[in-house]
Amino acid sequence: MRKKILVIHGPNLNLLGVREPQVYGAQTLDAVNGEIMDLGRRLELDVDIFQSNHEGEIVETIQNARGRHHGLILNAAAYTHTSIAIRDAVALLDIPVVEVHLSNIYKREPFRHHSLLADVVTGQITGFGGRGYLLGIHALSGLI
Amino acid sequence: MRKKILVIHGPNLNLLGVREPQVYGAQTLDAVNGEIMDLGRRLELDVDIFQSNHEGEIVETIQNARGRHHGLILNAAAYTHTSIAIRDAVALLDIPVVEVHLSNIYKREPFRHHSLLADVVTGQITGFGGRGYLLGIHALSGLI
Amino acid sequence: MRKKILVIHGPNLNLLGVREPQVYGAQTLDAVNGEIMDLGRRLELDVDIFQSNHEGEIVETIQNARGRHHGLILNAAAYTHTSIAIRDAVALLDIPVVEVHLSNIYKREPFRHHSLLADVVTGQITGFGGRGYLLGIHALSGLI
Amino acid sequence: MRKKILVIHGPNLNLLGVREPQVYGAQTLDAVNGEIMDLGRRLELDVDIFQSNHEGEIVETIQNARGRHHGLILNAAAYTHTSIAIRDAVALLDIPVVEVHLSNIYKREPFRHHSLLADVVTGQITGFGGRGYLLGIHALSGLI
Amino acid sequence: MRKKILVIHGPNLNLLGVREPQVYGAQTLDAVNGEIMDLGRRLELDVDIFQSNHEGEIVETIQNARGRHHGLILNAAAYTHTSIAIRDAVALLDIPVVEVHLSNIYKREPFRHHSLLADVVTGQITGFGGRGYLLGIHALSGLI
Amino acid sequence: MRKKILVIHGPNLNLLGVREPQVYGAQTLDAVNGEIMDLGRRLELDVDIFQSNHEGEIVETIQNARGRHHGLILNAAAYTHTSIAIRDAVALLDIPVVEVHLSNIYKREPFRHHSLLADVVTGQITGFGGRGYLLGIHALSGLI
Amino acid sequence: MRKKILVIHGPNLNLLGVREPQVYGAQTLDAVNGEIMDLGRRLELDVDIFQSNHEGEIVETIQNARGRHHGLILNAAAYTHTSIAIRDAVALLDIPVVEVHLSNIYKREPFRHHSLLADVVTGQITGFGGRGYLLGIHALSGLI
Amino acid sequence: MRKKILVIHGPNLNLLGVREPQVYGAQTLDAVNGEIMDLGRRLELDVDIFQSNHEGEIVETIQNARGRHHGLILNAAAYTHTSIAIRDAVALLDIPVVEVHLSNIYKREPFRHHSLLADVVTGQITGFGGRGYLLGIHALSGLI
Amino acid sequence: MRKKILVIHGPNLNLLGVREPQVYGAQTLDAVNGEIMDLGRRLELDVDIFQSNHEGEIVETIQNARGRHHGLILNAAAYTHTSIAIRDAVALLDIPVVEVHLSNIYKREPFRHHSLLADVVTGQITGFGGRGYLLGIHALSGLI
Amino acid sequence: MRKKILVIHGPNLNLLGVREPQVYGAQTLDAVNGEIMDLGRRLELDVDIFQSNHEGEIVETIQNARGRHHGLILNAAAYTHTSIAIRDAVALLDIPVVEVHLSNIYKREPFRHHSLLADVVTGQITGFGGRGYLLGIHALSGLI
Amino acid sequence: MRKKILVIHGPNLNLLGVREPQVYGAQTLDAVNGEIMDLGRRLELDVDIFQSNHEGEIVETIQNARGRHHGLILNAAAYTHTSIAIRDAVALLDIPVVEVHLSNIYKREPFRHHSLLADVVTGQITGFGGRGYLLGIHALSGLI
Amino acid sequence: MRKKILVIHGPNLNLLGVREPQVYGAQTLDAVNGEIMDLGRRLELDVDIFQSNHEGEIVETIQNARGRHHGLILNAAAYTHTSIAIRDAVALLDIPVVEVHLSNIYKREPFRHHSLLADVVTGQITGFGGRGYLLGIHALSGLI
Repeated sequence: MRKKILVIHGPNLNLLGVREPQVYGAQTLDAVNGEIMDLGRRLELDVDIFQSNHEGEIVETIQNARGRHHGLILNAAAYTHTSIAIRDAVALLDIPVVEVHLSNIYKREPFRHHSLLADVVTGQITGFGGRGYLLGIHALSGLI
Repeated sequence: MRKKILVIHGPNLNLLGVREPQVYGAQTLDAVNGEIMDLGRRLELDVDIFQSNHEGEIVETIQNARGRHHGLILNAAAYTHTSIAIRDAVALLDIPVVEVHLSNIYKREPFRHHSLLADVVTGQITGFGGRGYLLGIHALSGLI
Repeated sequence: MRKKILVIHGPNLNLLGVREPQVYGAQTLDAVNGEIMDLGRRLELDVDIFQSNHEGEIVETIQNARGRHHGLILNAAAYTHTSIAIRDAVALLDIPVVEVHLSNIYKREPFRHHSLLADVVTGQITGFGGRGYLLGIHALSGLI
Repeated sequence: MRKKILVIHGPNLNLLGVREPQVYGAQTLDAVNGEIMDLGRRLELDVDIFQSNHEGEIVETIQNARGRHHGLILNAAAYTHTSIAIRDAVALLDIPVVEVHLSNIYKREPFRHHSLLADVVTGQITGFGGRGYLLGIHALSGLI
Repeated sequence: MRKKILVIHGPNLNLLGVREPQVYGAQTLDAVNGEIMDLGRRLELDVDIFQSNHEGEIVETIQNARGRHHGLILNAAAYTHTSIAIRDAVALLDIPVVEVHLSNIYKREPFRHHSLLADVVTGQITGFGGRGYLLGIHALSGLI
Repeated sequence: MRKKILVIHGPNLNLLGVREPQVYGAQTLDAVNGEIMDLGRRLELDVDIFQSNHEGEIVETIQNARGRHHGLILNAAAYTHTSIAIRDAVALLDIPVVEVHLSNIYKREPFRHHSLLADVVTGQITGFGGRGYLLGIHALSGLI
Repeated sequence: MRKKILVIHGPNLNLLGVREPQVYGAQTLDAVNGEIMDLGRRLELDVDIFQSNHEGEIVETIQNARGRHHGLILNAAAYTHTSIAIRDAVALLDIPVVEVHLSNIYKREPFRHHSLLADVVTGQITGFGGRGYLLGIHALSGLI
Repeated sequence: MRKKILVIHGPNLNLLGVREPQVYGAQTLDAVNGEIMDLGRRLELDVDIFQSNHEGEIVETIQNARGRHHGLILNAAAYTHTSIAIRDAVALLDIPVVEVHLSNIYKREPFRHHSLLADVVTGQITGFGGRGYLLGIHALSGLI
Repeated sequence: MRKKILVIHGPNLNLLGVREPQVYGAQTLDAVNGEIMDLGRRLELDVDIFQSNHEGEIVETIQNARGRHHGLILNAAAYTHTSIAIRDAVALLDIPVVEVHLSNIYKREPFRHHSLLADVVTGQITGFGGRGYLLGIHALSGLI
Repeated sequence: MRKKILVIHGPNLNLLGVREPQVYGAQTLDAVNGEIMDLGRRLELDVDIFQSNHEGEIVETIQNARGRHHGLILNAAAYTHTSIAIRDAVALLDIPVVEVHLSNIYKREPFRHHSLLADVVTGQITGFGGRGYLLGIHALSGLI
Repeated sequence: MRKKILVIHGPNLNLLGVREPQVYGAQTLDAVNGEIMDLGRRLELDVDIFQSNHEGEIVETIQNARGRHHGLILNAAAYTHTSIAIRDAVALLDIPVVEVHLSNIYKREPFRHHSLLADVVTGQITGFGGRGYLLGIHALSGLI
Repeated sequence: MRKKILVIHGPNLNLLGVREPQVYGAQTLDAVNGEIMDLGRRLELDVDIFQSNHEGEIVETIQNARGRHHGLILNAAAYTHTSIAIRDAVALLDIPVVEVHLSNIYKREPFRHHSLLADVVTGQITGFGGRGYLLGIHALSGLI
């Protein structure tokens, strides 16, 4: 049976490529998702992709991954730094979770240096732009 | 006229009994709600129960309790520590409010030690699992 | 062509005039909005007004202002102090943004002294009650 | 065999009803103890009650509960915030311990917000006046 | 009888238009004062204007406003962040006081983020350049 | 009727004149008490004097001053910085209380700079050696 | 030869009796100075009194006390908490210096709890209103 | 003449061997004291041993060591971290003092990492269980 | 021409597989290096590998990469958190640098949560064991 | 045309040689100024010297250096640590500014370790007594 | 088979007896080492002694103790407070480790109060000069 | 006999002129050393120059200056902020030591604002580029 993974994009990522391109690059979210789907096909993984600006929806999408997906790629964007609810939902899962950030969060404002998720995920990949998702899927594929 | 109280369960509590049973116990939310309804009947209180993973929905449910309920049991879970919006909604009420936590939050991560609600509620009951709701209803019944 | 501005009221402001009148005054949100619309007419500005208790909805309303409005008046209320997601949405805009607070937030609890928005908006107007929105529109009209 | 519980009142509680009634209520310690004894009889629990202003005496009374009592209700009052010795004595016990506070300590001075006992007790009940002891006995009776 | 207001400019504002024009704009203090006087005439307010680099002189000018002026616009510049003496003088007044800052102080060095005046004034207007004084006079005119 | 005041000396003050004379002076506690009694006679005040090294005894002595003494001079020594129980007992009194320290506590270790009593007493006299008690009695005599 | 002492009143004390009488009492500075002069006569001390709102003038008045006065009573008011320059001038003197505060500064805002002078003066008298100056002169008279 | 040393055991050490044996070992206080007396005999030292749960008694026992003992072994247990009164009593002594802790306090809760005694004793021995007392006596014997 | 990359292993990594295998896994450094070389061959990259326990040697190895290598994989281990000298050497380079950590440093002691390198490298990969180096090389290969 | 430099001495420096000679040396300000003038002559620089105890006067003297002097030597003494107004005046200048301190401020009280000027001046010379001014003039002469 | 222990002296200890004798005593390192060897002979322990000023060399010497020595005495001197690399090497060992400091580090600068090693060693001996090594060997001999 | 001084350059200074020229200037270390030797000749001082990237080597070079050199110029670069070992070595010397920094460290990252050396050296010269060494030698020549 093919393995199934879930990719979650957090708030404001729907505007990727539009928002501060000098920070996040000019690639749109559709383009990034296209590359993710391609890599999924190459690695023979089924990939579901979800974007939301609502903390509660992200919580529920993570809850629903239980028993349905074998791995999670999570870029919670701004909620990385403020949402204990998302952290609690992640802690519910018993599958590997990779935290991804497009920009190097350690070069930005101090309030972005601390992740509430970092100590409940498997690992973190930071600073490689949209490519970070692909590295994350490689990492997952070695873990599931 | 019978008094009416409201019980609110915050984010991820829909998975009670599933999520980290070593922390929260194996009782499901349905089982807990059953005991709550039973106690309501014994004390001749009408009880409304609400669960949500969405901060905004909890804010609005609290707002709507104005003029409708005589007491509130609030387990805001993760939002306890991050939501000033829920705190502001609680401060709007002029009925007794009991803050309940299933686990002893002081045995857990430091960011769970501080409640943004604690100084706007009437009292706090912490660490007695699902039984905490029942103690909270007893406390309310003495106040309304 | 007439300029168009957007006014956003954050969580619990739907209860203005009800909630802690000693802090926020007795004027209702409808009354405040009426004055805002009047001033808009006088200054020949089109004004859209939006209220929400949901962080995600505020994020999306700000996102949608791109290319549609020439200025934003934002009273994010409780989310001022907790939402990096709203901050990120504001940083996306290239129109002037005025942060408004009804009460003098520096006379209140310490957690209300720090705004996550203050350094991404154009300016801040604090402490003048509902009149603050009108001053904000005056400020915007000089900037757009 | 009937179960036996111990109730300890810490420093200055001998003046309950006298001391700052706007904070602690007008009920005297004798009145509170009367209600405690009544509830004990109703629940068929033997209850011992002890008050002291001396940290060392409280330490020793807790030590002596070992092998003698099946549960402890502890309102350490001021020593809650300063006594590691009492904390260490509590940690010695292998019976359930309920920490009780009459007033909502989170509405008071910052140095009362932190309890040195909170993470070694079973649970905490705060803000319900003398009634808090009764809720605590209910909680204990479910645990022993 | 016409109302009378006082405008105080703090240290280094005598060099407005010269000093760091990228921060404060190129308008000189004389030009700003001209606009203030014009607005005063339009609103039928008498306006006194005072500039000083000396903390003690500002203290005394504020003291002397007692019984003489109906409102105060105060831009204490650097002394905003260091002078308890000016704060104490402001607290002496029983007329409305508007704190004005030309630049958005929250975009600048951290030591400029905290105002010793903010919790003793009526309200604060920040980030609108010389126009901030005019908004402040509008705000005052609604309060006196 | 003659007024009656109470003087309390805290821990280690029984060794005054012995202990670190370069800090506290060479005068013994008996000598200091003699001067206190003399001044009491001159001002026609009855004076009770009490020394203890036990926090609980000091708490109870302060409790007992209720209805018995018209003023209290309190040098709680080391307990000044650690005893919330003594603070709570002081807050019970409705008579003037003068906090006295022999040495200038602000020239000593940082943990002696903060007094838990300072904001519940009437006033504080620090740094004048045994003479501080006499100044304290003068201060009391003007208040009772 | 008669001893000579200097009394310095800091900023805003010229308005004593006017400013926040609930904090500082209704006695004017002239009345306080009258009592100071009376006590000086009784103790056969020459007394010079000086008030200023200017930090620099206070610095220089303290400098000039060298070789001219035998003791200093200093109520630096707001400058107590902000002026290292006054602290440095005090450290220049080799005569006893008594720091006086009218109100109990420990009951007020946190920024008034710390004195930059406290560890360079002989002693501190706080919380006895205008009477504090008289206690200070008594203290000085025992030291010079 | 034989030298005489004093060994003080602080609060809860009367339950050694009972209390959390995984932290403190299974050896009882009597067994430890037996080894201490044996070593005293071997080194020809007279040894007095004292245990108390009362801060005040420990203060007075230390005070009484003046002129009577030539060295002190002090395990103040919980009071190590909270008692300035014991610290002050230690500072009174002019004999060598060795601070002993059974467990490695740096592996435990943060509030046990700081000792109020450490900078007034001669040296500190931590983490060697009951054997620490014996090492302490060896250390003393080289110093007296 | 083939691209050349450098892999640096910091202090104690020579004992990989030996040291705390529950934290770092049982794979030895030789095994990890073998996989690195294999991947290099597959991606047609020349790979140099260096391990040192000496801060100064790591500084100099990084300095020497200038003009010689096209990318750097740096696992500075303990020096990540303490070495500004290594940070300065990294800042000298104008080639992409990937910071790798075997374990999830955010699950470990607080002093390992802060990296002095994080804001001068291109990106960071944390928590994937020896596989992290391979992901790092994939990341580099997309950047050079 | 000869270059012109300005030397400013801050508060209490008029008493140099008198004040704490163990800290600042026995040389008077006149003697230091003599050496400064001599060096100016040798380097063919015109030198103006100014001393003040008034923050406002120092602000204005710095303002007036604009267009008049080619370099500034500034020893702001106590104001170094408290005056944002002087900092703002320095930031106005576009000539080199050398901050000089007579004593090594890092060996003194912690509040003297932080300079509000340090990041707006060209460089800092600390700890060489009066000679520091001469080194500063040498430094300036290489910059103007 | 005889047991073998290792003693490591950290940076600047090669100058023992020379460096600040008022802090460390006048005994040279050779003299201390002589006493260590003597005690080793008496206790029938083989002793290796190593001194280095290089962090990397100390790391490697600790690494090499694995499988070779039965106990370690470590005085890491300045590196105690700064070296996570040495801490990591110690954590690799499964033999008892005793941390020794010559001076009482708690009487010295604040940055010497915190040891990065304290929670990974068996125990700590502080403040007994060169004798501390001998006590450490006694402690080890009871553990191996 | 000619005086002899030592100049030490810390880590990464071997790349001066290469590394971030916008921060440190384009002058190479050789060029700087040439100017140092020239000035030495002019002042008739023998000058030894040493550069190292190794903390231990710098420690030992400083140790060896004892009895051999009459003054030390120390630019410890990155080690300024992290090395207590170098600080201890400096404290061993009884010759004047001048701390030099090329850039104004107070304009850079916060972790460069604190020097572990500052309170054990004679004085500090910061922000004058390579010229800072020459000023340091001038300063030394007045002290030896």
